[in-house]
Amino acid sequence: MSDVLSRRNFLRAAGIAGAATVGVASTPAVWAASPAPKADPVHTSHTAASQAAATSADEMDDHHEEGVKIFLENIGKDERFWNNRLPYREEDGVKVFELTCQEIDWEVAVGQTVKAMAFNGSVPGPEIRITEGDQVRIIVHNEMSQSTGIHWHGVIVPNNMDGVPFITQPPIKPGESFTYEFTARNSGSHMYHSHHNAMEQVTRGLLGAFIIDRKDPSKDPQYDADYTIILNDAGIGMTLNGKSFPYTQPILAKLGDKVRIRYMNEGLQIHPMHLHGLEQLVFAKDGWKLPLPYYCDTVNVAPGERYDVLVHCHTPGLWAFHCHILSHAESAHGMFGMVTVMVVEE
Amino acid sequence: MSDVLSRRNFLRAAGIAGAATVGVASTPAVWAASPAPKADPVHTSHTAASQAAATSADEMDDHHEEGVKIFLENIGKDERFWNNRLPYREEDGVKVFELTCQEIDWEVAVGQTVKAMAFNGSVPGPEIRITEGDQVRIIVHNEMSQSTGIHWHGVIVPNNMDGVPFITQPPIKPGESFTYEFTARNSGSHMYHSHHNAMEQVTRGLLGAFIIDRKDPSKDPQYDADYTIILNDAGIGMTLNGKSFPYTQPILAKLGDKVRIRYMNEGLQIHPMHLHGLEQLVFAKDGWKLPLPYYCDTVNVAPGERYDVLVHCHTPGLWAFHCHILSHAESAHGMFGMVTVMVVEE
Amino acid sequence: MSDVLSRRNFLRAAGIAGAATVGVASTPAVWAASPAPKADPVHTSHTAASQAAATSADEMDDHHEEGVKIFLENIGKDERFWNNRLPYREEDGVKVFELTCQEIDWEVAVGQTVKAMAFNGSVPGPEIRITEGDQVRIIVHNEMSQSTGIHWHGVIVPNNMDGVPFITQPPIKPGESFTYEFTARNSGSHMYHSHHNAMEQVTRGLLGAFIIDRKDPSKDPQYDADYTIILNDAGIGMTLNGKSFPYTQPILAKLGDKVRIRYMNEGLQIHPMHLHGLEQLVFAKDGWKLPLPYYCDTVNVAPGERYDVLVHCHTPGLWAFHCHILSHAESAHGMFGMVTVMVVEE
Repeated sequence: MSDVLSRRNFLRAAGIAGAATVGVASTPAVWAASPAPKADPVHTSHTAASQAAATSADEMDDHHEEGVKIFLENIGKDERFWNNRLPYREEDGVKVFELTCQEIDWEVAVGQTVKAMAFNGSVPGPEIRITEGDQVRIIVHNEMSQSTGIHWHGVIVPNNMDGVPFITQPPIKPGESFTYEFTARNSGSHMYHSHHNAMEQVTRGLLGAFIIDRKDPSKDPQYDADYTIILNDAGIGMTLNGKSFPYTQPILAKLGDKVRIRYMNEGLQIHPMHLHGLEQLVFAKDGWKLPLPYYCDTVNVAPGERYDVLVHCHTPGLWAFHCHILSHAESAHGMFGMVTVMVVEE
Repeated sequence: MSDVLSRRNFLRAAGIAGAATVGVASTPAVWAASPAPKADPVHTSHTAASQAAATSADEMDDHHEEGVKIFLENIGKDERFWNNRLPYREEDGVKVFELTCQEIDWEVAVGQTVKAMAFNGSVPGPEIRITEGDQVRIIVHNEMSQSTGIHWHGVIVPNNMDGVPFITQPPIKPGESFTYEFTARNSGSHMYHSHHNAMEQVTRGLLGAFIIDRKDPSKDPQYDADYTIILNDAGIGMTLNGKSFPYTQPILAKLGDKVRIRYMNEGLQIHPMHLHGLEQLVFAKDGWKLPLPYYCDTVNVAPGERYDVLVHCHTPGLWAFHCHILSHAESAHGMFGMVTVMVVEE
Repeated sequence: MSDVLSRRNFLRAAGIAGAATVGVASTPAVWAASPAPKADPVHTSHTAASQAAATSADEMDDHHEEGVKIFLENIGKDERFWNNRLPYREEDGVKVFELTCQEIDWEVAVGQTVKAMAFNGSVPGPEIRITEGDQVRIIVHNEMSQSTGIHWHGVIVPNNMDGVPFITQPPIKPGESFTYEFTARNSGSHMYHSHHNAMEQVTRGLLGAFIIDRKDPSKDPQYDADYTIILNDAGIGMTLNGKSFPYTQPILAKLGDKVRIRYMNEGLQIHPMHLHGLEQLVFAKDGWKLPLPYYCDTVNVAPGERYDVLVHCHTPGLWAFHCHILSHAESAHGMFGMVTVMVVEE
């Protein structure tokens, strides 16, 4: 998506950078598109607040503003955030993927580095993307100092491919490899992650999206763009796709677009994801199509769950998009953690 | 509702005050209405419990009884609890509301005062109630020592009316005002709250119900009464509509009534709301009608979510009604926090 | 169920004990049944991991392996786990049950005893199982040092049978008894538990399943086996039916079976229950049939909620089955708490 809207154009469209700097209620391009209110918003002095309070309020506002400015300046600078698909090679009709588990330093935000465990150097690991009926082989190399085992969460596999050490396979010891192989039977938004010392390994980053596209896409709703948001909270802190606001990336859409969003929770807490201004049509849970979709604005995602929603971008603007457990999203020093923005351009 | 049943009549109907005082299994009026059990409940001495245990048990029971007595004595003494609608004036076909944000002392229970942030001196703020298609103007005055911005949670608005400082508007500084104006497009049970330093401002009370009635009420189920329960937990503690049991108010209904209840969660935790004796028909989520309603007795409401349910009052009595996270509702000193009662009179 | 598969046969079928002991990727009987992967999983040395890391990894693996071995050795040794129905006597067409509340020591795992409160010496209390339309009398004897009152959670009863001290009855003092009597109106998966000082009494064990079978079973889906899993977390720790892994029991099913599972949450936290390899069809909530069932692999159960699901055992093997809040299920010392296995035999 990031090529449909250059950062420069985006900032001009939004008019936010300027507005934020001068601190007045100007009417940037993207706002002007909204049905004009009968009376323009006015911003008038009401009572004489004490100078002390004003100073303190100004300091807090400066922190908030700084976060938003960093977010806007960072747009497009992390291609990996939305687009990190694992390449594969074909061997005799089998799609062959390779994953390497390593202990790495991961930057959840500039200046905030955590001791992570990662697939192929990324948190989350790269997305594995296949189609119903595909035969896949996934070779897992363990370069960590702990053993591991990889579970294909939600994917129907033969039992010996399920990845639970001492239940379905021996652990993959440090320095060893293990090959998983199966045929993709159930389409949908699934996940892969460690299933060994998982309380540590998953929360520190050994996780990724495992998406099985339908053979017949007409069974899914039609959409113009497709995003995955992986929620995490424990080992690497409050993050969307491994990053904490302001280092998350926005969803960039055009007026009229239908955007598919896949929520996946790999954390230890629920995360009710609230999108401003645009309703969400929930049409699948855990990769399984719901018998009847339903509308909402807040999708409560529990650990292990996935939800697929469709957002019709009917109103232009910059729509805040965040976990509604406010302690996961904002402090007196500004927004952080599980926050991003959905931008709808005219 | 409180005028349909005076407190005196209620107590006589329930027969609870007396029963509790004498501590025997009498059969008060409201109980007698229930299908008579074949054998009356008996309450006989079974084994010789130690005097020490009995004393401790009696003390605990006294605490529990005291809470219930206070609850019963307090019925009808807090009109605001169920009925706190914000008045408006009409100007050229626009409904004009005014909200003033202030730091206040708020009494969540007698003798338990918290440092709150409130709209118009109340936690929650007064309900804003309009109808689909209405044009509204809401003038927000900030008399606090912090800046703020007000978000209309769940309401579809133009982007510049969305209330997120530095994303859709500048913050409303202490002493300043800001005017929001939009046309109500989507009916349902919505909310309004601060979206600036929200982790503090919302949990301390800058929140309220924003209800948009349908233009065509026949699209909703039929009901006899309409209640809103706003859940909160952090800054002001475990509360329903800003109060902690025994200072919450009951829902007073008549046998055969259909009661609509709107749950709104403005806290940081889930609250599974359990109603005794009467099933709940869930028919809307986040203001959007479900394609098919479903029955349950426990509605799990996550932060940011709203659920609308219909309760058919088919059995008379005093039905406990509380969050089923027991640590939000009861201690060794009796019930507290997120507890109320649904009274069904014959 | 435990008699359909002796422990010896089970271990031979699974081939797990041996595989785990020798630590190689052998292909035990149950795995061989799965569609053979094109390339057998290989388990080759990849890089030279440091000896220190290997040692530490081995120690961790040993802890994990030991838990699984204990689990397998313990199969069938706790008949109570799945089969603990309360006997009754019939008097004039009424089914009469007796429950005695006591303070006991309860072993949640070998060597891990907690101070519990129990019905008839068991945590959870024995299952009460009746049929729609039945008249029941339940005599509760309180032999604890605290008063109590018993609530029939989800069951529609006359108000004076609802079990809330000071609201619907006086407390049942130590040494006293109380008789509840009602006719079962609403079928489904319900619960019974203390409703007095419940934060302590329920979380320490005063709880059990209350299941009302349909008079006309054809209104439910068809199934071959019926299991209840009661979730708890606070007073007695992370447990399924009162036990912590490895002292939980597996579900033992045959290929092609349809298994009904009833989740009941009596704890203070949500528990998203994830079953590997086999999808879950959710068809009832809180005992009420959903208008349309839906598929998923993770059922998020909040305190007070019940969900009924149907699992079609379409793939043989040992399927891990656990709460997906990983801190409720695994540590560096292996799996614990809310973990079991669903075994599907060919």
